Amino acid sequence: MTINEIREYLAQFFGNVELHGDGGSVISGPAKIEEAEKGQVTFVANEKYLRFLETTKASLVIVGSSVPAGDRLDGTSFIRVRDPYTAFMLLLQKFSRPRVVAAPGISATAVIGKDVNIGSSVSIGDYAVIGDGCSIGDNVVIGPHAVLLQDVSVGSSTVIYPRVICYDGTVIGRRVVIHSGSVIGADGFGFAPQEDGSYLKIPQLGIVEIGDDCEIGANTTIDRATMGSTVIGCGVKIDNLVQVAHNCRIGDHTVIAAQAGISGSVTVGRNCMIGGQAGFAGHLELADRIQVAAKSGLSKSFPDAGISLRGTPAQPMREQLKQEALVRGLGSMKERIEKLEAEVLRITRG
Amino acid sequence: MTINEIREYLAQFFGNVELHGDGGSVISGPAKIEEAEKGQVTFVANEKYLRFLETTKASLVIVGSSVPAGDRLDGTSFIRVRDPYTAFMLLLQKFSRPRVVAAPGISATAVIGKDVNIGSSVSIGDYAVIGDGCSIGDNVVIGPHAVLLQDVSVGSSTVIYPRVICYDGTVIGRRVVIHSGSVIGADGFGFAPQEDGSYLKIPQLGIVEIGDDCEIGANTTIDRATMGSTVIGCGVKIDNLVQVAHNCRIGDHTVIAAQAGISGSVTVGRNCMIGGQAGFAGHLELADRIQVAAKSGLSKSFPDAGISLRGTPAQPMREQLKQEALVRGLGSMKERIEKLEAEVLRITRG
Amino acid sequence: MTINEIREYLAQFFGNVELHGDGGSVISGPAKIEEAEKGQVTFVANEKYLRFLETTKASLVIVGSSVPAGDRLDGTSFIRVRDPYTAFMLLLQKFSRPRVVAAPGISATAVIGKDVNIGSSVSIGDYAVIGDGCSIGDNVVIGPHAVLLQDVSVGSSTVIYPRVICYDGTVIGRRVVIHSGSVIGADGFGFAPQEDGSYLKIPQLGIVEIGDDCEIGANTTIDRATMGSTVIGCGVKIDNLVQVAHNCRIGDHTVIAAQAGISGSVTVGRNCMIGGQAGFAGHLELADRIQVAAKSGLSKSFPDAGISLRGTPAQPMREQLKQEALVRGLGSMKERIEKLEAEVLRITRG
Repeated sequence: MTINEIREYLAQFFGNVELHGDGGSVISGPAKIEEAEKGQVTFVANEKYLRFLETTKASLVIVGSSVPAGDRLDGTSFIRVRDPYTAFMLLLQKFSRPRVVAAPGISATAVIGKDVNIGSSVSIGDYAVIGDGCSIGDNVVIGPHAVLLQDVSVGSSTVIYPRVICYDGTVIGRRVVIHSGSVIGADGFGFAPQEDGSYLKIPQLGIVEIGDDCEIGANTTIDRATMGSTVIGCGVKIDNLVQVAHNCRIGDHTVIAAQAGISGSVTVGRNCMIGGQAGFAGHLELADRIQVAAKSGLSKSFPDAGISLRGTPAQPMREQLKQEALVRGLGSMKERIEKLEAEVLRITRG
Repeated sequence: MTINEIREYLAQFFGNVELHGDGGSVISGPAKIEEAEKGQVTFVANEKYLRFLETTKASLVIVGSSVPAGDRLDGTSFIRVRDPYTAFMLLLQKFSRPRVVAAPGISATAVIGKDVNIGSSVSIGDYAVIGDGCSIGDNVVIGPHAVLLQDVSVGSSTVIYPRVICYDGTVIGRRVVIHSGSVIGADGFGFAPQEDGSYLKIPQLGIVEIGDDCEIGANTTIDRATMGSTVIGCGVKIDNLVQVAHNCRIGDHTVIAAQAGISGSVTVGRNCMIGGQAGFAGHLELADRIQVAAKSGLSKSFPDAGISLRGTPAQPMREQLKQEALVRGLGSMKERIEKLEAEVLRITRG
Repeated sequence: MTINEIREYLAQFFGNVELHGDGGSVISGPAKIEEAEKGQVTFVANEKYLRFLETTKASLVIVGSSVPAGDRLDGTSFIRVRDPYTAFMLLLQKFSRPRVVAAPGISATAVIGKDVNIGSSVSIGDYAVIGDGCSIGDNVVIGPHAVLLQDVSVGSSTVIYPRVICYDGTVIGRRVVIHSGSVIGADGFGFAPQEDGSYLKIPQLGIVEIGDDCEIGANTTIDRATMGSTVIGCGVKIDNLVQVAHNCRIGDHTVIAAQAGISGSVTVGRNCMIGGQAGFAGHLELADRIQVAAKSGLSKSFPDAGISLRGTPAQPMREQLKQEALVRGLGSMKERIEKLEAEVLRITRG
């Protein structure tokens, strides 16, 4: 791909794409600015990397409109564009080698149940097991060893990696990606305590519904609802090893980082960002656009949209940071008390 | 199922079951009280839902003995019973559609090792692998893609979901449920530091023993003992993504919520409740009926039964809540110190 | 194995191995000192177990050079050695029954892709799937249901347990052990926020590289780099349910306990010890030999080697313990303030 071709490709997305320097060189692939070699493309989207602009060996650097593109005479070209980060991401996709999750078609060793509806251009990998009554949309890729129990519905262009399992009745939207080892729709953790100290299992009759354009990481668990649905909205991105318990509702375009845990019947708004290892008590409600810092522990609902939360129990960022500063200042507070005590003693003694 | 049939069914468990209203209507399924439609059954076990009693569209409501059953004239019937929650759970089981974890019989693609003992009415799913010397009790269901290494023993009526793996020697009781992706009996995390900074693996020769009537969630890990057994007592319920390390002993009817982590050689008593994301240092002992709040970090043993713990490091609930209140009050404590300093200065200066 | 044979075996490693008592008895296996029976071998490496020396029923006890070996007349022999713990570990290996992860040879049901290079004495289990272009070294064992996508390289004598998955391009060293359910090389969690509130997936073009002699626990996830490699150094030991995000670099012989989470682009030095459930913010750097207490939350880099960290946000152990003590002392601090207020009031009022 030449620099001119890259410029034309980006122009489809950004319109105004300025090129400084030679457009004929061939670019072989992407690299980080501090590691890039001749023939590679890199980018600067963050001020602290500007210092590499003069020294990078990359043949092409994508920079933002506000960055002086410079006049390197040694063969490094510059492309200026409104959003260099997204531009570079689009280039990464161009250069990425396609991963073969499953060969085209249905493997002879895949087990397809009764009354299964399969769309066109579907790939189903070796030893995958598709239960009775499942429905698989067009262009779906199901990796080797994936298991769908009965009546699972998979929307078009969704990719299910090897060794995902979906329990019965799971409904998955379009263009969803589910990474290996995730378990969708296992029974919610519901047990009724009995008088003798034992527990009676509460049947988990609901399902999991996953909206369009979600991505779900590896070894994540999303439990089915007791009744009704556990709902993952559209465009939700969930990292690895996350727990989403029964009857949760996660709003559209919310992002959940690794090892976070959402207890039963929690409702999270749209466009929230949940940090890694954060935890939620059950039955909470979070408004839209709330940011939860990593490792926070939420014990109550937060109805105000757009706030940031931190700490255990979590509180608005400003209060929490103030409190943390007070705790860090405890040593000096103690010294001030000691000084006061000495002075009061002096005064009392006259 | 008619309302009269429901009444008769519940009478088997509760004896005294009072019906108010028509008993002939057919009930099609269960629903939450605020969402129930005509033809459905719902329940009230919690005071805060009493307000829906007058407006629910459900044809049947299960209520407690202390709740006035009302006299709705619009076709809603009431059943009064001592424990409406358990009654409703029993109904949920009645209405639940059976999940097909594996078709009856042994799949032709299941691999059965040498000297495997298989009871009657066993289901073993597609591509399951059963190692040499395993013993599978009557009525056991083993899902597709489950893998048992050699000498695993599975008690009668146990259900092992797809993609569970049990390492060699694991002993599983009767009526146990293990959800997908869980790994039972992998090597404990034991390494002896060597003088050159490297580690020597400590062989993990023990096994995991799981008692009767346990349920283990998805993607949970329970490690084998170094020597002897890691023991999960009877009736223990473990949620998703939980870590139980080598040589732990979990007492009967203890409940462990998602993402909790129990370090090596911890002993937990009977009927404890461990909150989500709680963590235990190694070698601790917990008495019976202890409740550990979510996200707590335990760094010492607690020999007193029945207490509640919270915080990191965890302490009895009352001390911890008092301490949290003091921390929240730090701002005003600082102001009081400032005021004192001003007054003392004023006094000193005369 | 007789006691004399045990002595000779240990002499290979330690040179000086002193035997007190009878060397002819046959030892059937190892046990903990408090549970050992006649015919078993046990050890004492920790002072608090010295009290069992007089009463243990073991036929052989391995003790340290500084321990008086005693003169038990009842048939218990003693071996004195510089490092009794490691000596016992070496014996455990001697007594351990070999686990059959996969039968020798390549199972007829394993799927081997095109251009796959397989060394000598390789075992590949039932239903394993090896993608195109993979390279499998000598003496490698790949368990049933393991899945390697294309171009995965596995070094000699490595053991991959059932149901591990390695995404395309993963490079695994020699003598590595990866336990069941782990997912190596899934996409890093990278999404670029768009103006409409949705996210654009950032292609994850890198790979995961795992050095020689690593052990990786069950259901752990190690994500591939966005560009370049996520690097796990040599001799690294990772427990169960750990998250290592994209572009992390973990130094040689570092140990990571269960459920710890390392965010993207974190660099951890050599010979560090990371406690369970610890969490790291992204882009941090840790020097060598740093110890991170369980449940700590790291929010900044620590460039000083050998320190211990604790707390959220984590700080050096001494500061953190001092701060925790101050928090525990808040009640008395409040009382001192109240007392001061009373005295000042008394002074003011004359």
